[in-house]
Amino acid sequence: MTYCVAMALDQGLVFASDSRTNAGVDHISTYRKMRIWRRDGERVLVLMSAGNLAITQAVVAVLDQHIRSENPHRSMLVVDSLYDCASLVGQAVREIHQRDAKPLKENGVDFNVSLILGGQIKGEAPRLFMVYAAGNFIEATPETPYFQIGETKYGKPIIDRVINTRTDLTQAAKCALLSLDSTIRSNVTVGLPIDLLIYERDSFAVDNHHVIHDHDPYFEDIRTRWGQGLNNLFQVIPDPPWAINKRGG
Amino acid sequence: MTYCVAMALDQGLVFASDSRTNAGVDHISTYRKMRIWRRDGERVLVLMSAGNLAITQAVVAVLDQHIRSENPHRSMLVVDSLYDCASLVGQAVREIHQRDAKPLKENGVDFNVSLILGGQIKGEAPRLFMVYAAGNFIEATPETPYFQIGETKYGKPIIDRVINTRTDLTQAAKCALLSLDSTIRSNVTVGLPIDLLIYERDSFAVDNHHVIHDHDPYFEDIRTRWGQGLNNLFQVIPDPPWAINKRGG
Repeated sequence: MTYCVAMALDQGLVFASDSRTNAGVDHISTYRKMRIWRRDGERVLVLMSAGNLAITQAVVAVLDQHIRSENPHRSMLVVDSLYDCASLVGQAVREIHQRDAKPLKENGVDFNVSLILGGQIKGEAPRLFMVYAAGNFIEATPETPYFQIGETKYGKPIIDRVINTRTDLTQAAKCALLSLDSTIRSNVTVGLPIDLLIYERDSFAVDNHHVIHDHDPYFEDIRTRWGQGLNNLFQVIPDPPWAINKRGG
Repeated sequence: MTYCVAMALDQGLVFASDSRTNAGVDHISTYRKMRIWRRDGERVLVLMSAGNLAITQAVVAVLDQHIRSENPHRSMLVVDSLYDCASLVGQAVREIHQRDAKPLKENGVDFNVSLILGGQIKGEAPRLFMVYAAGNFIEATPETPYFQIGETKYGKPIIDRVINTRTDLTQAAKCALLSLDSTIRSNVTVGLPIDLLIYERDSFAVDNHHVIHDHDPYFEDIRTRWGQGLNNLFQVIPDPPWAINKRGG
């Protein structure tokens, strides 16, 4: 599995993804799940993927091909809006579906892929989209300013409690890492390294991208503090008022 | 959906279950998911269920039927061990599977059920089992002293951090409620009231069973404190050391 989360905030965008891929527990490998395209000063595009690795790689290959061909209607580095880019990602998913879905099904494998695309193109505000396996897509709104894909449930409560569009980028990055931490602790199919990208609104640059490996001092520190803090908090929460019946006591 | 959790601790057992059942979001109702059988001073049995409501009700009906018939080999109130009781639950699941699985499949419905059975029979320690849809079952061990069924992921991180076999019953009950709270907040298909049962080892009695409804003052209090405490903890966790590039600043 995979876990990726992205947040659309007033100050910009935050993206985080793990990098574990498994096909059965005896075949676990590391694959980065974040792909970045940019034209400095003009556009930044970030794509994160979950699902069948062959499918997600094929989708990226199609997108790259159109970028190399500089096709004005098919290149994500040329089209006018992030909506158009999301539409191109959806088209690429549909092309791969056309090619692979039937043989996959004959082998008992579902056509399983989901993608998060975010970024900013000059003339627009930063935008964030989620693209489904059917190639259709939705955009994040102020009411629900984040998307998750993959193994999403363990890390959802902390985001629901902390994130809104006014959250600043630093806090949002911290929240994304703690959400990853909860997921990694509870699910062996999600693992380090983590790709973390903080995109500042109107910067049109990728100058805040970090790869967090095992023993990263900051990540280790917040994992420990968060774990201890949760345990301390748990201790100070009042006990249930229902007395435990102490026999003979 | 449903969320149920049970913990097997040195001091006894803790069971908690929500009570929301849904068949699509426009058909949400309240059904209790905890069933208790007892012989005061001799045995206490607690069964919690998740999955298709018709199947879980049918399984309970089969178990009740055998109890009423006082069949020495089939009544959970007569057999010698909790292992035998788990085996009877598994047999009941297989009977219902035999009867219902094919017509369900013809209607596109999976045979979906999972159950947690725990309790104590005089002569044994308290024991805790999980019974699968195939009628097979496993027992909790000191390494993993809890079982969850239903919508399990949101509420797993808090249990993983807090619970071990030495946790006392009061703390475990508090943990179970916070685990339910995380699930209820993030998933609309899990809801109040909560059945909470604290079984003290060797008590052979059900004297600590609580139904927690909307506006229960203790549950409201710990939900608020937990939410505020998490937010406070989040604030004091150090921010990432990577400076956000402040253009023009």
